Amino acid sequence: MAFPQSVRLVEVGPRDGLQNEPTPIDTATKLELIDRLGSAGITHIEAASFVSPKWVPQMADHREVMAGLKRRPGVTYAALTPNLRGLEAALESGVDEVAVFGAASETFSQKNINCSIAESLERFAPVIETAQAAKVPVRGYVSCTLGCPYEGEIAPEKVADVSRTLFEMGCYEISLGDTVGVGTPLKAKRMLECVAGQVPLEKLAAHFHDTYGQALANLYAVLEEGIAVIDSSVAGLGGCPYAKGAAGNVASEDVIYLLNGLGIASGIDLDKLAETGRWITETIGRPNRSKVGVALGAR
Amino acid sequence: MAFPQSVRLVEVGPRDGLQNEPTPIDTATKLELIDRLGSAGITHIEAASFVSPKWVPQMADHREVMAGLKRRPGVTYAALTPNLRGLEAALESGVDEVAVFGAASETFSQKNINCSIAESLERFAPVIETAQAAKVPVRGYVSCTLGCPYEGEIAPEKVADVSRTLFEMGCYEISLGDTVGVGTPLKAKRMLECVAGQVPLEKLAAHFHDTYGQALANLYAVLEEGIAVIDSSVAGLGGCPYAKGAAGNVASEDVIYLLNGLGIASGIDLDKLAETGRWITETIGRPNRSKVGVALGAR
Repeated sequence: MAFPQSVRLVEVGPRDGLQNEPTPIDTATKLELIDRLGSAGITHIEAASFVSPKWVPQMADHREVMAGLKRRPGVTYAALTPNLRGLEAALESGVDEVAVFGAASETFSQKNINCSIAESLERFAPVIETAQAAKVPVRGYVSCTLGCPYEGEIAPEKVADVSRTLFEMGCYEISLGDTVGVGTPLKAKRMLECVAGQVPLEKLAAHFHDTYGQALANLYAVLEEGIAVIDSSVAGLGGCPYAKGAAGNVASEDVIYLLNGLGIASGIDLDKLAETGRWITETIGRPNRSKVGVALGAR
Repeated sequence: MAFPQSVRLVEVGPRDGLQNEPTPIDTATKLELIDRLGSAGITHIEAASFVSPKWVPQMADHREVMAGLKRRPGVTYAALTPNLRGLEAALESGVDEVAVFGAASETFSQKNINCSIAESLERFAPVIETAQAAKVPVRGYVSCTLGCPYEGEIAPEKVADVSRTLFEMGCYEISLGDTVGVGTPLKAKRMLECVAGQVPLEKLAAHFHDTYGQALANLYAVLEEGIAVIDSSVAGLGGCPYAKGAAGNVASEDVIYLLNGLGIASGIDLDKLAETGRWITETIGRPNRSKVGVALGAR
């Protein structure tokens, strides 16, 4: 129950953010975004998703993105790989890390990936094994950890079960997603405490959405518990697929401002990051959902 | 160091919010806004400001607003009264409560009200005395408690000094303003602890702005300390006069969502409040800065 000394930020804007754009963003813009994020000091960037372009046309250029990366030393370029076929393509593309995506809500699992939670875990087993054989680390996402758009409340024990299973299957880190941004600080804290009873706290990450404006308060609450890995999206890219016009991922700039104020190191240059947020939102013509980005730009 | 069981929300949208609108809002719209806020369960509404229309044309209709109120039992209708002349007009208008406005930053005091902090306190003395003689409670605001747009960091001791002086002069409550929204949770906590050494905690209110997106995290941090009065603005009305396009007061809807999640009573109907936020922003053609308001409206 103490603040971490430093936090690792996992930037999900190029994937979780741009995946929710109504029209695909061109590869060159994605590559420039990824490069600018690395230049701001971000060491962990989710760059692409190896899913079928039929399902997610926004990520159809995954091979081109991976091939076009201006790789910076010390930066991990990761990709989502929901199945073996995606994993094989990702490995061929030279990805540094992959991720699988489970849910803590049965209904969400059915609607999002067309199978039960148990079936999704079965499907991930060969993905994780093959990645491990190739010495590529696997991250596990768990969605709906603080609520589900279909089921409402989700029991923390359910989140802990899925998290433990993914961890035991070989995921090196479990990212706990508040997919619909409905959580509040004490719920986030209780959920984290429950999961940390099954998976070591230092193997957990907070992936909070800001749909109801609570993300930073929730992050502060789990930072009090010692969480040291945070997922976020520059300029809050992406929005929310479950509520039109609503906010999606918490903005990376706002997270770094919080960490700076708490005296927690991140190694990230806030001014450069905020500039990147303003650049990408102007380039793709979307609102800048980082309040820090807007305020710093107005100075 | 325990969460309060209930929180009293002080709605400042009709004053602190609309005061920052580039063009004055018509009196009928203000009156409907105030009535809708009361109907949502808000018991404390800052309805007007008795300043010279030369300085604040947006509040020139203060007499008409006070006269036009459809008064609800149990609701306090308050007004800002920076000087004796304003106070006298406010008293004639039948105001329930008045407020004076001090600063914790010398430079801000000079630029905002053209006098030193000490001079401002001297000026407030007859205002407070006259109000007390009329049995009208006086609230004291302290601005720049977590930073100043001109001086940067502000020592918590300075905030505590000004707060204690206003309290000793007869203010029944001191509202601690993060006027430029630069604070972060631990700073907010330390400032509050310092002030609470001079003024009883139950006499303090948090008035936080969301310019850098930190307001809810800061509120959560001071709720952990037991603060039980929060100032906010429906739909985050108002914006920030120090950074064009940036956010101003924290949105009331987002505060109530937080309180509901923490199990802290407020007596406020969130759906009605969010509806009011959507109505006023559509009516005056401004962005709805409440994420809760936007998300609930998109369901």
